[in-house]
Amino acid sequence: MTQLSPNAGESRLERGKRALAEIDGEAGHKVVAALADIAPDFSRYIFEFPFGDIYSRPGLDLRSREIATIAALTALGNAAPQLKVHIEAGLNVGVTRDEITEVIMQMAVYAGFPAALNGLFAAKEVFGQRAAAAREEAA
Amino acid sequence: MTQLSPNAGESRLERGKRALAEIDGEAGHKVVAALADIAPDFSRYIFEFPFGDIYSRPGLDLRSREIATIAALTALGNAAPQLKVHIEAGLNVGVTRDEITEVIMQMAVYAGFPAALNGLFAAKEVFGQRAAAAREEAA
Amino acid sequence: MTQLSPNAGESRLERGKRALAEIDGEAGHKVVAALADIAPDFSRYIFEFPFGDIYSRPGLDLRSREIATIAALTALGNAAPQLKVHIEAGLNVGVTRDEITEVIMQMAVYAGFPAALNGLFAAKEVFGQRAAAAREEAA
Amino acid sequence: MTQLSPNAGESRLERGKRALAEIDGEAGHKVVAALADIAPDFSRYIFEFPFGDIYSRPGLDLRSREIATIAALTALGNAAPQLKVHIEAGLNVGVTRDEITEVIMQMAVYAGFPAALNGLFAAKEVFGQRAAAAREEAA
Amino acid sequence: MTQLSPNAGESRLERGKRALAEIDGEAGHKVVAALADIAPDFSRYIFEFPFGDIYSRPGLDLRSREIATIAALTALGNAAPQLKVHIEAGLNVGVTRDEITEVIMQMAVYAGFPAALNGLFAAKEVFGQRAAAAREEAA
Amino acid sequence: MTQLSPNAGESRLERGKRALAEIDGEAGHKVVAALADIAPDFSRYIFEFPFGDIYSRPGLDLRSREIATIAALTALGNAAPQLKVHIEAGLNVGVTRDEITEVIMQMAVYAGFPAALNGLFAAKEVFGQRAAAAREEAA
Repeated sequence: MTQLSPNAGESRLERGKRALAEIDGEAGHKVVAALADIAPDFSRYIFEFPFGDIYSRPGLDLRSREIATIAALTALGNAAPQLKVHIEAGLNVGVTRDEITEVIMQMAVYAGFPAALNGLFAAKEVFGQRAAAAREEAA
Repeated sequence: MTQLSPNAGESRLERGKRALAEIDGEAGHKVVAALADIAPDFSRYIFEFPFGDIYSRPGLDLRSREIATIAALTALGNAAPQLKVHIEAGLNVGVTRDEITEVIMQMAVYAGFPAALNGLFAAKEVFGQRAAAAREEAA
Repeated sequence: MTQLSPNAGESRLERGKRALAEIDGEAGHKVVAALADIAPDFSRYIFEFPFGDIYSRPGLDLRSREIATIAALTALGNAAPQLKVHIEAGLNVGVTRDEITEVIMQMAVYAGFPAALNGLFAAKEVFGQRAAAAREEAA
Repeated sequence: MTQLSPNAGESRLERGKRALAEIDGEAGHKVVAALADIAPDFSRYIFEFPFGDIYSRPGLDLRSREIATIAALTALGNAAPQLKVHIEAGLNVGVTRDEITEVIMQMAVYAGFPAALNGLFAAKEVFGQRAAAAREEAA
Repeated sequence: MTQLSPNAGESRLERGKRALAEIDGEAGHKVVAALADIAPDFSRYIFEFPFGDIYSRPGLDLRSREIATIAALTALGNAAPQLKVHIEAGLNVGVTRDEITEVIMQMAVYAGFPAALNGLFAAKEVFGQRAAAAREEAA
Repeated sequence: MTQLSPNAGESRLERGKRALAEIDGEAGHKVVAALADIAPDFSRYIFEFPFGDIYSRPGLDLRSREIATIAALTALGNAAPQLKVHIEAGLNVGVTRDEITEVIMQMAVYAGFPAALNGLFAAKEVFGQRAAAAREEAA
């Protein structure tokens, strides 16, 4: 999937849930669960604004959106859990492992080598987990 | 152009100059001139590492590289001149005005609305200058 | 005004416009105008999410919200135009000049003296403009 | 307590120790202990400048000071241990759990959703520890 | 001067004023004047904590202190006015133009090329002003 | 060692490996191993640009380079593993424990007290590990 298919009559919340489900269903459920007893409204905002509004816009394919997000979170360097979620999401929408690695390495130029290194270690963790999960499924 | 064509036997400096020339020739000349009397070696490093090493790697197309860079510089929010250079560069390698606007708007999610707003104002300036230059050439 | 009065049946966009108008009407119009030819949807998002969703929530008074925003923008130190808008907004919802100055000075502890200094200079500019505007009106 | 009561003749160090004790006694002792064998003078500076000078100033109530600090540390996103200390401190000077949650959610607007999410998770941890401690005391 | 000479009986304020005067007298006067009508106490804090407490400590020479500050302000990239003050200060305590340039270029590794570039442009401006001032004095 | 001795005819990669070996041999091997299965080219870039190009430049002694790096990484506050590597490196090129502590404390002025505190805790960890290693060797 490179673009969220339109779906007339959907609310922002519905569209956001659908978008996040297509990009990374696991992450959506985890965030709802984690926020349930502290800020349940914030789950709704996450569905509505980032996913219902932004990621659902037709002007940019999801591959490019995930490349942009991986770049930004690597460069900012202070949101490792969210970077891992979007490395997963990137793989889910068709960005390859090698392309993700290229994007993260490139951040050495814009945010320094430590930010890029820590981004590569986050990617290594995600790639390793997926490989382990794939082996388990195959077994 | 979405990928730098390989060119055997080229030095990193030559390859970097060629890469930067294809992406944004103007910017390359300006930076060399600006650094000439303070840190001429730094111009060489810019050609060699970001452009000779990173942007010349075959694993990611230049469109995606510019999307990543525009995202990161918008999110970091402290390098307006370089963000403008890469908005230019994005246009030069085939990212459309609308796609650039989408990438910058998306940064509201990851770095906040002020960072996205300031990124949009940078884009507005670049788009305006190019439109003015196009009108002048047409006249 | 320390809290946005509820208004049943209002859309997020309407509520956000009303919230921003109460906090800083000028700023709202300026941002719509500035974004008109580059990203008009982004104006709508600004009304809807920050103002329609967040500032309109009943759990925190607007005075505290502006204190939080002035603190954060001073600390981040990379969004001077938006910091000035929120210094205005703080004054509009009843934070005094002295309280704003206290909040900004306190940021020396959390983000360093340069961030606090640059925040104070932004406040000085806003306070000066308001004093000049008041003198003009009185004349 | 919303304001530190004045106490004539006190040194900055004494005033700072008193201020930090009123805001969060535990945190004060922990930081002194942690710095004892590496930078004992730095404990003194922490008492003197942030607490003896800034938090003791009469121009802003402690509730507002903690709101400002929680906002800034959430937005900066790179000082989780200190954010937790100030979430505790906020509760100690009368900011409610709900108000703290509101401040942190609001940071999604100024520093992005990941910074707000990580702030909410820090708050969840602090709230959980206090609830557990309350249950233990009650048992 | 590579170390502030001790001076028994001096208050922190006196010591800080003396330290800042030795490092960069101009900057001290300018900051006091700029803060006079908005936050005069903040001038006092600047004299007392950074200069009276930190820069006056015997454990590190002023050359190294200015190298550390130039590095940090270049890397943070959001405090250009203060970076220029410390480039001046570095020259005043014996860091050479070439050494300052080296420190700033090195920041490309830790904070990215744009931060280093903007630091070099700040240095170019300061070096140019001093050269112009020297020519004027010589005339 | 305060300066890398020149060595004619060496490639950037060789020079970088030699520089990193002289500064912190352990760290070099660890990073190569950690990147082997995800981004082996990035190890080469680390040898070539930061160490082969920058740290090998004759214009600034290694002591000053490590002071600059420790300052910057403390101030940025989002790269704890790399900060620890450079605290080690600082000790290896002759910056004393006390000088490192001074540099980190000074960052309270430029990046806030939390950044300095977290830097001090990183230093405490490194100093403790070296003391433990020294005791083991002595046993």
